[in-house]
Amino acid sequence: MRGPASSSPAIVVAPDSFKGSASAPEAAAALARGIRRVLPDADVRLCPMADGGEGTLDAVLSRGGSRRTARVTGASGTPTDADFGVLADGATAVIETAQVVGLTDAAGAHRDVESRTTRGMGELLRKLLDAGVRQFMIGLGGSSTNDGGAGLLAALGLELLDANGVSVDASPQGLQRLAQVRAERLDPRLASARITVMSDVTNPLLGEGGATAIFGPQKGVRSDRIADVDAQIGHFAALAEQAMGREASKLAGAGAAGGLGFALQLLGGSMRSGAEVVADLIDLDTALRDAAWLITGEGRTDAQTLLGKTPLVVATRARRHSVPATLISGGIERAALQQLGPHFAGCFALPFGPASLEQCMAEAPSLLADCAEQATRLFASIAGRTA
Amino acid sequence: MRGPASSSPAIVVAPDSFKGSASAPEAAAALARGIRRVLPDADVRLCPMADGGEGTLDAVLSRGGSRRTARVTGASGTPTDADFGVLADGATAVIETAQVVGLTDAAGAHRDVESRTTRGMGELLRKLLDAGVRQFMIGLGGSSTNDGGAGLLAALGLELLDANGVSVDASPQGLQRLAQVRAERLDPRLASARITVMSDVTNPLLGEGGATAIFGPQKGVRSDRIADVDAQIGHFAALAEQAMGREASKLAGAGAAGGLGFALQLLGGSMRSGAEVVADLIDLDTALRDAAWLITGEGRTDAQTLLGKTPLVVATRARRHSVPATLISGGIERAALQQLGPHFAGCFALPFGPASLEQCMAEAPSLLADCAEQATRLFASIAGRTA
Repeated sequence: MRGPASSSPAIVVAPDSFKGSASAPEAAAALARGIRRVLPDADVRLCPMADGGEGTLDAVLSRGGSRRTARVTGASGTPTDADFGVLADGATAVIETAQVVGLTDAAGAHRDVESRTTRGMGELLRKLLDAGVRQFMIGLGGSSTNDGGAGLLAALGLELLDANGVSVDASPQGLQRLAQVRAERLDPRLASARITVMSDVTNPLLGEGGATAIFGPQKGVRSDRIADVDAQIGHFAALAEQAMGREASKLAGAGAAGGLGFALQLLGGSMRSGAEVVADLIDLDTALRDAAWLITGEGRTDAQTLLGKTPLVVATRARRHSVPATLISGGIERAALQQLGPHFAGCFALPFGPASLEQCMAEAPSLLADCAEQATRLFASIAGRTA
Repeated sequence: MRGPASSSPAIVVAPDSFKGSASAPEAAAALARGIRRVLPDADVRLCPMADGGEGTLDAVLSRGGSRRTARVTGASGTPTDADFGVLADGATAVIETAQVVGLTDAAGAHRDVESRTTRGMGELLRKLLDAGVRQFMIGLGGSSTNDGGAGLLAALGLELLDANGVSVDASPQGLQRLAQVRAERLDPRLASARITVMSDVTNPLLGEGGATAIFGPQKGVRSDRIADVDAQIGHFAALAEQAMGREASKLAGAGAAGGLGFALQLLGGSMRSGAEVVADLIDLDTALRDAAWLITGEGRTDAQTLLGKTPLVVATRARRHSVPATLISGGIERAALQQLGPHFAGCFALPFGPASLEQCMAEAPSLLADCAEQATRLFASIAGRTA
């Protein structure tokens, strides 16, 4: 390195999580370690990223705010302690659906998907409204439910009634008896709430490309039940839309998280790419200002990465600031390299030689540091030489 | 890339061979392919390297000269066709010991090491002297013999006689009956020959750290025969030194190639690092002049690489020209990374994710191209940005 300008360059470190190996903050810390071995005085800016799914809280809270817990109804109906975040402004909450009605809810996993409900999501929103929160950033993804968001809406005051005017359970099972929906008792504070829904899913709520047909099977909807469940949710959605005087079932992303995308959009929420929202929340653009280089990363890279996954979102923002963005990945599908190439200032993988997936995962943090170190050596040699 | 200066940078490509996967010229071509995907107008300077062992001919001849063949006695005593090179000057020959008395000599492999001889090496030198060659660059390494170089010297006219003045076979077996050595009939043209011996071996000829004790077993010397064979070779060496009026058995490298290092130094040859000689022969320094970057490589990298292996030699020359040198390796021992780091502008390995050794080897050329492409993307982004 020559000259003081190049020996303390600003380097942004903005990886996604390496699932099963390192959270995004852990990955960012490891990458920073590697960078500092070469450039001890570098201004390393840690911006752990997420895509709105699991890890979003970790990423967002690494930049400030506080992590809190609320006891709400889990997907299976038993109480669960759900983590959420409140940003430094005290008025913005960050919620991971997976924390509330996620696949990791062990009790929920045992119960049939047709009896699972998103009621806990509505309960959490209500508690937050009580606490004065009016801005909600809700990450979908990792849900175990397929109730069309009926549970969330019911917990917020939407009345789901049978032919006799008796409440039905806000689950696919309960919705079989649904005859009318009334919106009069919906929480009035929702009118002043601003809901941002983080999801990369673009499926509508119903039909062939809908929540039940596409995501139902992996949640346990039996193939011979798909048509019936889809019809029940369709019936609920039509009544809910009528009661609310608004349509949402055909919107892109209505089919996300078993229909939570529908329910939240019916409440006026707007869908955005999770990584874009997280990038805003952690203020990636400010970190990129005057930066010399950026390293992003993810556990596995293939052509899907180009469909707006975290590293692409990060690289696109970097490009806007004329900052070269290098990708360090747990593994890169070589067939995708040709398409990935133009987006990144180099795509590098973790293994330093023949290795098994288990080895790579077990050693991910130290591999991340080593890999970042090597990329930094190339960066520093060239930057120092031509500066 | 910005500006014409940075869009057509001079990039030197100087890999060693990737043994079992790609020769050095093949590796260099693959690396160049990857570079040109990013910088189609780059001035890519192909400088395939070698360390004096197998592949040296390929590397040297890729820059000019001609490949020729001579029929000489193989290690086992049967005729073998040995490739060698003659440089463009017509007066310099490049010889790989492995081509003449190598482990790949199938017939020799069947025969006991104690009957193998380096006679063919002497025959080849004689033929070359006949052809007017006076400069010999001889790469040791890959030999199957352990005759103290007796065969080579005998073929060049050194007389090995028993107590009755009858010639003995120039093999460990024959040397058992050796009683006197006479140098009167040694080829007089050797006096005007200049012999450069390429080897990284520093062992002396005899004793605990000598040719027989250290390299004998891998050539088939039985452990209960080491002491005897070492003594026979010691006896021959002492007589030969006396006859020649010169000592060589204790010189560094005398123990290389089963004692060829001794014989060639006894003839006045000088030992040099194979990679250094090859770097001179291919004129690496000229290629480095005004270059912006260099990529070197080898099949496998560990702490041994730091003991003067090809990538280190190349990187050291690059440093003298202030050219950053990046290493691309089939696999890098992570424990050595800390020591390797300061020598290279980044050390990168071929795998793009979890992979077996077999996969990496089978796909080496395309992996080399992909890996060079990614490194070049980082290089070009930084070089273009700061230019």
